[in-house]
Amino acid sequence: MSIQRYIAANSPRFLDELVDLLKIPSVSADPAYGEEVVKAAEYVKEKLIASGVDTAEICETAGFPIVYGEKIVDPAAPTILVYGHYDVQPADPLELWESPPFEPVIKKTELHPEGAIFARGSADDKGQFYMHVKAFEAMLAEGLLHCNVKFMIEGEEEVGSENLDHFVQQNQEKLKADVVLISDTSMISLEHPSVTVGLRGLAYMQVEVTGPNKDLHSGTFGGSVANPINVLCKLIASLHDEDNRITIPGFYDQVQEYDAEYRKQLNKAPFDLDEFKRKLDVEETYGEKGYSTIERVGIRPTLDVNGIWGGYIGEGAKTVLPSKAFAKISMRLVPDQDHKNIARLFEEHFLKIAPPAVKVKVVPHHGGQAAVVPTDSIGYKAAEAAIQEAFGKKAIPTREGGSIPITALFQKVLGLDPILLGFGLDTDAIHSPNEHYGVANYLKGIETIALFFKHFHQLSREA
Amino acid sequence: MSIQRYIAANSPRFLDELVDLLKIPSVSADPAYGEEVVKAAEYVKEKLIASGVDTAEICETAGFPIVYGEKIVDPAAPTILVYGHYDVQPADPLELWESPPFEPVIKKTELHPEGAIFARGSADDKGQFYMHVKAFEAMLAEGLLHCNVKFMIEGEEEVGSENLDHFVQQNQEKLKADVVLISDTSMISLEHPSVTVGLRGLAYMQVEVTGPNKDLHSGTFGGSVANPINVLCKLIASLHDEDNRITIPGFYDQVQEYDAEYRKQLNKAPFDLDEFKRKLDVEETYGEKGYSTIERVGIRPTLDVNGIWGGYIGEGAKTVLPSKAFAKISMRLVPDQDHKNIARLFEEHFLKIAPPAVKVKVVPHHGGQAAVVPTDSIGYKAAEAAIQEAFGKKAIPTREGGSIPITALFQKVLGLDPILLGFGLDTDAIHSPNEHYGVANYLKGIETIALFFKHFHQLSREA
Repeated sequence: MSIQRYIAANSPRFLDELVDLLKIPSVSADPAYGEEVVKAAEYVKEKLIASGVDTAEICETAGFPIVYGEKIVDPAAPTILVYGHYDVQPADPLELWESPPFEPVIKKTELHPEGAIFARGSADDKGQFYMHVKAFEAMLAEGLLHCNVKFMIEGEEEVGSENLDHFVQQNQEKLKADVVLISDTSMISLEHPSVTVGLRGLAYMQVEVTGPNKDLHSGTFGGSVANPINVLCKLIASLHDEDNRITIPGFYDQVQEYDAEYRKQLNKAPFDLDEFKRKLDVEETYGEKGYSTIERVGIRPTLDVNGIWGGYIGEGAKTVLPSKAFAKISMRLVPDQDHKNIARLFEEHFLKIAPPAVKVKVVPHHGGQAAVVPTDSIGYKAAEAAIQEAFGKKAIPTREGGSIPITALFQKVLGLDPILLGFGLDTDAIHSPNEHYGVANYLKGIETIALFFKHFHQLSREA
Repeated sequence: MSIQRYIAANSPRFLDELVDLLKIPSVSADPAYGEEVVKAAEYVKEKLIASGVDTAEICETAGFPIVYGEKIVDPAAPTILVYGHYDVQPADPLELWESPPFEPVIKKTELHPEGAIFARGSADDKGQFYMHVKAFEAMLAEGLLHCNVKFMIEGEEEVGSENLDHFVQQNQEKLKADVVLISDTSMISLEHPSVTVGLRGLAYMQVEVTGPNKDLHSGTFGGSVANPINVLCKLIASLHDEDNRITIPGFYDQVQEYDAEYRKQLNKAPFDLDEFKRKLDVEETYGEKGYSTIERVGIRPTLDVNGIWGGYIGEGAKTVLPSKAFAKISMRLVPDQDHKNIARLFEEHFLKIAPPAVKVKVVPHHGGQAAVVPTDSIGYKAAEAAIQEAFGKKAIPTREGGSIPITALFQKVLGLDPILLGFGLDTDAIHSPNEHYGVANYLKGIETIALFFKHFHQLSREA
């Protein structure tokens, strides 16, 4: 098939272009990288044009811009809207990277005998959305593009996609499509190709506990006044009970309980608990009582402290009783849990349980709704067919723990179910030091995406 | 009296010399300041010589040096050993200082209408030990020095005085004295002069909790693996019960309980709870149930987290499930609690309560024994008489929450009870941003120290 030949012939350049994109430190969370984020947007626009779109533009928002590009081959043909993001997570802790996060290197690993690209954003999401740009180029070059394509690549996914809502609302006509295709999730493995059919939502909070109005000497004052770190630890500890269930009143009210049959099916996905523990070097897993690991990340909400700080954190010992302590706390939500409601419940509860000896501030950072993808749509069937053709295997439907808040927005505003056709692996270390993305995953992904276009076109005609 | 005249005439220079000493950032806890610590030692030696000692030397240790100097006026006369420290606490958080910590400025405040010197170490302990150097100069110049004096000024007090033990053991003959005089504590106020008769001990620990072997994405893994921050908070929270008593088994075994009469006397010290709360801007105090604030810092042990960190602590939001979390935890101890035993109990308990899903490391930092000073000694009586003469008031004996581990060492090795004649105030913000020391406290302290020498000499002859 000519798509595969085209990919094989052009793969060095496909990799080079991705490497150049990965060199741009487009960290949206850190204001210091503001210019770099914009630079990444410009790079994406250029490459869309070079790959053959009719038009491409940088759409300003109140935050970082959205890159939009489209190719209309036939107004009567089905249209695929590709969503991705060119911003990346912060790279720290830097000292744990084996090579600098913005100096991509390709290295072979046990899991990636053909090599993996090590760089921040390689899997999340530059390497993944860029597959679409290259699949598009390949289809166009080979005369195999029979669907219209619209690209919407944003720069604020890692900070909550705050301005995308407004953009989508304002551009419903422009974004009109038959399906949204997103590669920002992972599959089980290249041997067990899977399609994500569920994603958790997110509510991200920052809390600040203030004890005395200034740092004090822990000898002179220790025991007489509330230590904000001790209190913060107490508050955080109280957010889970002995069974590791979250104690915020009302938190589980909207959580869907699944029947035994559904849970049985879910637990059939290939998963090796011993291997999981060995890879993470933990003696035991840890989570909500009564659920398997697959269920804990798939169908159960969770609460994690993502960061904590307060007092003296330098070398050596300092006997300070600090004035303030802080934590970043996020909750992963399941369908029907509204992230705004959960943020409110968290805030109310946290303020309520704080003792009067401290002052507490709660600031919601950002959030997103959970999503479930139906498996009876043309889009899902096209994904299944593409995987069958590319891998020779039936796709396994999986529920993933992460959040792509935008999926709920597409469903609500555009009425489109997203197809979550991701090619990353859980071991890619996204959001961690040494993030990487398999070269084979990248090239196989490009092929599978082109096949998705083919099958979506065929199935749409048959429907 | 000529001492007072001499102080008045020389006070600008006395202040200038202190200011020069405060300009040296002798932070013993931070290796980056190593050279500055040594520079401070050299400055102290120079000033001892300029003030008139017979000999002064820099005594090397395995860590920072000890400055020793002496003036023997008469081998038959009583000898006073002055202890102090020229090292200081780290200055961070720097952004909370109103003027740079190592650029001393004198400013008037509500409590210090004659001005206070703002600088790291101004009260703890440079400003306080330097009073002894200047009292010595004044007595010598005015022909009023009738006691021998030995200065031992160390550079590791803020990091646990680790090498002083060995030095004192090896130099018992050289350090032979009739009393140890230390100004490294505070008094209630210039209106309520007090002498410290009890100090708490200290056990300082660092703990490290490891969950997975690398940072993970909190969406993909949240809920399936122990989050070391959540676990650390749970462990720390469990160290206190509902009555704010410490839950470490055996922790209170050696804690002395006091009878009602003793506690009544202790609570007679001038203390305004409303003023205390107002100054610290707290709605309520917080501490062990069944004890007053004075008791909580005076006769009860405490446990405070001095620092905590883990995960993402930068700007914005990062959905990381971190690999590690850390805390610095210190316990203030009361007489009979052995700091090494308590450190061992802490470690055993902390390792025991950690769930098997994490790995825990406990590293003891440093410690020191609590101390009680008898009030029937010549030294204490001389302090009372000096305060009576300088302030026209009877000294109030107080128990202070802080620790000067060296006091227990003097009692054990040299058989000397220390006299804790401090002139700082609890509001001096030692170990905090904007540390300061009242100019009036400094000058009144010099006078009182000279009077202590006078009365110690007289009372020794009468004994």
